[in-house]
Amino acid sequence: MLRAALRDGTAARHSVFEVFARRLPQGRRYGVAAGTGRFLDALERFRFGASELDFLTSHGVVDDDTAAWLHDFRFGGDIWGYAEGECYFPGSPILRVEGTFAETILLETLALSIFNHDCAVAAAASRMVQAAGGRPLIEMGSRRTHEKAAVAAARVAYLCGFASTSNLEAGRVHGVPTAGTSAHAFTLLHDDERQAFRSQIAATGEDTTLLVDTYDVAEAVRTAVELAGPRLGAVRIDSGDLRVVAEEVRRQLDGLGARDTRLVVTGDLDEYAIAALAAAPCDSYGVGTSLVTGSGAPTASLVYKLVAREDVSGALLPVAKASPGKSGTGGRKHAHRRFQDGVAQAELVSASPPAPEPGTEDRPLQVPLVAAGRIIGREPLEAARERHRRALAELPPTALHLTKGDPALPTLAER
Amino acid sequence: MLRAALRDGTAARHSVFEVFARRLPQGRRYGVAAGTGRFLDALERFRFGASELDFLTSHGVVDDDTAAWLHDFRFGGDIWGYAEGECYFPGSPILRVEGTFAETILLETLALSIFNHDCAVAAAASRMVQAAGGRPLIEMGSRRTHEKAAVAAARVAYLCGFASTSNLEAGRVHGVPTAGTSAHAFTLLHDDERQAFRSQIAATGEDTTLLVDTYDVAEAVRTAVELAGPRLGAVRIDSGDLRVVAEEVRRQLDGLGARDTRLVVTGDLDEYAIAALAAAPCDSYGVGTSLVTGSGAPTASLVYKLVAREDVSGALLPVAKASPGKSGTGGRKHAHRRFQDGVAQAELVSASPPAPEPGTEDRPLQVPLVAAGRIIGREPLEAARERHRRALAELPPTALHLTKGDPALPTLAER
Repeated sequence: MLRAALRDGTAARHSVFEVFARRLPQGRRYGVAAGTGRFLDALERFRFGASELDFLTSHGVVDDDTAAWLHDFRFGGDIWGYAEGECYFPGSPILRVEGTFAETILLETLALSIFNHDCAVAAAASRMVQAAGGRPLIEMGSRRTHEKAAVAAARVAYLCGFASTSNLEAGRVHGVPTAGTSAHAFTLLHDDERQAFRSQIAATGEDTTLLVDTYDVAEAVRTAVELAGPRLGAVRIDSGDLRVVAEEVRRQLDGLGARDTRLVVTGDLDEYAIAALAAAPCDSYGVGTSLVTGSGAPTASLVYKLVAREDVSGALLPVAKASPGKSGTGGRKHAHRRFQDGVAQAELVSASPPAPEPGTEDRPLQVPLVAAGRIIGREPLEAARERHRRALAELPPTALHLTKGDPALPTLAER
Repeated sequence: MLRAALRDGTAARHSVFEVFARRLPQGRRYGVAAGTGRFLDALERFRFGASELDFLTSHGVVDDDTAAWLHDFRFGGDIWGYAEGECYFPGSPILRVEGTFAETILLETLALSIFNHDCAVAAAASRMVQAAGGRPLIEMGSRRTHEKAAVAAARVAYLCGFASTSNLEAGRVHGVPTAGTSAHAFTLLHDDERQAFRSQIAATGEDTTLLVDTYDVAEAVRTAVELAGPRLGAVRIDSGDLRVVAEEVRRQLDGLGARDTRLVVTGDLDEYAIAALAAAPCDSYGVGTSLVTGSGAPTASLVYKLVAREDVSGALLPVAKASPGKSGTGGRKHAHRRFQDGVAQAELVSASPPAPEPGTEDRPLQVPLVAAGRIIGREPLEAARERHRRALAELPPTALHLTKGDPALPTLAER
């Protein structure tokens, strides 16, 4: 496409692409805009070096003129988007990329890969945090997803309210708080469970989390409290009927005087399993597989569509394809969230800023991220985390229902 | 764990870890061992540098002794595994990592991340190739998964029989053949479809693939053949009822004399949709989302379990946890596939090599990948691709059924 457009001159046409989801997966009630920080970092590094250009030309993917253009490529356009952590709905233009056709078409794969992955994990993470009702969640999914996706997933989980991650690289790169417990292998390595517990306590102190389900849970709990005393930090249960076992272990711990020892439960938890443990005496949850795989929706199905481009006269012309089931709405769009008494009512997506309506307030949702190629939208991960908390609090209460349903806000599209 | 084991001396105990799946997801009939090549590359780069060590010590994750150990870390153990592309079944020990506890526990996340991702995509890819019945498949899922996972997915798709990928980085890094078509944006960029087609043909020649469903399919096909003549390479259909539209377009192309122009169909295809197009006049398929997300099973649920370790006397002791629903079988295992008349009958997983049985042949499945830290298992991607083709041909024919069922081979475990 780039090669043909450079040849015929249309590569220079000013173009507007928008990223949006046609629908929310799995009967979910909101999406979470996530990946912005990673996208801006990736955009800064997005260059074509000698190795890439050599591959492209030697395999006939591009001709020499296109290679020369790619060699000099620096994105020089503008990008607006929903601030990271903000909620979104079907049709919400969560990213808008403007510039020449050549420089904007080139960002399609980069933007979609990052946002489709991160938004998928974010939507699951956010619901799990709601289901946990204030109990802390540890992200533990690194081993169930691609090694680099794992780091991104840990970042997004924290953004959506997880307390920590077991992915140490996410701690190093993104500043996510890290936590971890020991594995069954550590117990099996030792001559008996007692030696394993003693070794762990000696290395990390009494305020540690001992894994108690390698052999017999009741015996392990007894040994744990005997060795660490009532100041034992926590015990972890990773198997069995978690609700039943949690009750038993809590009773046993209390009986042994370890009233402050916490219970960490793990093992194939998703938002529904977490919700079902609400009445169980768990103190925190470790979540792996279902988080990093988006709990049934491993991609956010976001698309990157050309909505307007310069015509021969230099004016900006709205465009849209007419494919059945996939037709779009042309034109650069404004996005606002309409509030009444502090509660969100609707997502307004319109060609021009919406007319004010008495008794309501409209908050613009798009913020500048890149201006003439310069990245201006960076922020600390904590800011996005706090924004997501606020964004959820503004939605109508049904938004937080776990059951399948319609999007919590209607998207009102106006030309 | 590492810190405590270094302190108490058990870090030096010889340990044997095995990677296996307790079950196959989604009623699938076989799994595909994939990721070996990537794992060996990653293992070679797996070092702890100044930035990592500084993070770990400054955040109190490890003490100075552990940091010093990590600084000098080089994996010096042995790794055996199923050759890449080989099929696997529940309990198949597709990887075996041996060495000190310290060096082997450290590889858990690296190995599981890579194999869980790559095996998940491979299982889906292999079934799609079967469903396509010889028609070529193009991998097009980059935009629906994490940006680095996309490159790995393209590699694995090719390994399992896809013809090519639209991910150019997979071409550069892994040598996967690349292919691509144009997007709707390219048509929308131009003043009309005719100009877009003319530009594409001028840039890439008549043997190109024109996307014909931006506006009206019949008109687009007419324009395409008018401009490119009967030597037009292919047209792509990305929307509508693909079976119906393919029939119509084929008729139209034939009527226009473009009998050799091929039909590429894309649009939310998975193995079932591909199978349903068997009678339609499609020449090739482009598959995206369902491939990179493992078509319903985005992780292979492989685990990394300690199965044996040195005891105080220096002997190797089989170990296994007793957790309900997750118990394992201790001991280092041999894996063979038993054949009768050239057809696989069973997966033999046993403590010692199986006794020969008259009329059957046993093929050992584990090959050496790393010896005393030296990587010896590298091979060209083509070798794994060819191996997968052969491995499938040896399975009983039911293995290739798309319907949900039991694993195609029983796993016979013997102590």
